[in-house]
Amino acid sequence: MNKEYKNIKVIGFDADDTLWVNETYYREAEDEFTKLLSAYETPNKTNQELFKKEMEDLHLYGYGVKSFVLSMIETAIEVSNNSISSKAIQDIINIGKKMINKPVEMLEGAEEVLKSLFPKYRLIMATKGDLLDQERKLKKSVLAKYFHHIEVLSDKKEANYLQMLNHLDIDPSEFLMIGNSLKSDVLPLINIKARAIHVPYHTTWKHEQVNDEETNGKIYKTIANLTEVLNLLE
Amino acid sequence: MNKEYKNIKVIGFDADDTLWVNETYYREAEDEFTKLLSAYETPNKTNQELFKKEMEDLHLYGYGVKSFVLSMIETAIEVSNNSISSKAIQDIINIGKKMINKPVEMLEGAEEVLKSLFPKYRLIMATKGDLLDQERKLKKSVLAKYFHHIEVLSDKKEANYLQMLNHLDIDPSEFLMIGNSLKSDVLPLINIKARAIHVPYHTTWKHEQVNDEETNGKIYKTIANLTEVLNLLE
Repeated sequence: MNKEYKNIKVIGFDADDTLWVNETYYREAEDEFTKLLSAYETPNKTNQELFKKEMEDLHLYGYGVKSFVLSMIETAIEVSNNSISSKAIQDIINIGKKMINKPVEMLEGAEEVLKSLFPKYRLIMATKGDLLDQERKLKKSVLAKYFHHIEVLSDKKEANYLQMLNHLDIDPSEFLMIGNSLKSDVLPLINIKARAIHVPYHTTWKHEQVNDEETNGKIYKTIANLTEVLNLLE
Repeated sequence: MNKEYKNIKVIGFDADDTLWVNETYYREAEDEFTKLLSAYETPNKTNQELFKKEMEDLHLYGYGVKSFVLSMIETAIEVSNNSISSKAIQDIINIGKKMINKPVEMLEGAEEVLKSLFPKYRLIMATKGDLLDQERKLKKSVLAKYFHHIEVLSDKKEANYLQMLNHLDIDPSEFLMIGNSLKSDVLPLINIKARAIHVPYHTTWKHEQVNDEETNGKIYKTIANLTEVLNLLE
């Protein structure tokens, strides 16, 4: 085992795009959405307007598919100058329902890694987003049995992690977080003196992107593939 | 103290319509919604269709304002035979945003009861609904300081309560739940051998209503006012 992880007793896993596919489904939904609005705007412009609307709505709606659908509907009304048909609004609602009903597609190595670490560490899942969405995905994934605890957070900032660790009686120095988002799964952990391993996913939502300044001087490992975690921890 | 509560160590409080006003805001929203559709249908019919849609969508969307807004939009499209304007859709979205931005109006006695019980019991808040909605209301309410733990559940069935009690290491015989919904805050608790006190609110969502058969033979107390809890427990 890599000696920098010798104090670790609890490992937190992000789920979306760390254990299972998520962002890909949002990209596909955006493609369908921009097509619906192609009579009014270019896909690029529509996507820009949608992102603006999502950021505007974030403090009200939080993360998840329902929030995404509500932001799409408002964007459609604005981009079309109030001329979008109710048929198209129904299509947008159906895009959301289709997302909710997607099967859960596990990422390579997810179950293998959890199974190997399970006897040696306390494993927790720490996701943000919609409570019901995440419970549903966990149930479909059959990964639930590896976790001592599931925490759905309304956001993944330092305060959210501190509250979770405090509530679970975990010292930050004993906690390692693994996830695909530098902004949500890595940087806040380093700032509260926990550890973090970054496993990039091929596509990252713009809201989760960080610039070099934010990562400068922060100590974390980046691995190409989830299974590399086992080399570091075993 | 009433001797039937002598084993109680942990008290769970429902929040919506037990500690603060909630259902009233949904009724007001439904009034605005049915007015928007008054060119197409009577308020009574529109409300019936909305309730049907909410029940249809419940397994997909869960509880909370965002789910309610999505169900209103679909109902509007159907009731209007696809002729609802995008202006009216925007109005529906605005009804939801207004609900989210409502101040939290505490029910009589809520803080007094929590303050009195706080030194003698472990108090937890157990609500269902949207994670961010509930966190936001708790923050606005300044009641957070009385609770050892906040649990937002995706539903309030027996299995959800058992999982929560197990996770918090609470024996059902030591747990008392207090809330306004027979269906969500009382009956499931009795079925898992915990205790429950019912504090009715003046209006109950149809989905939370139960019939006499379901309450027959179930042992729980009903009180008219939250502060009566203190007579029973002190």
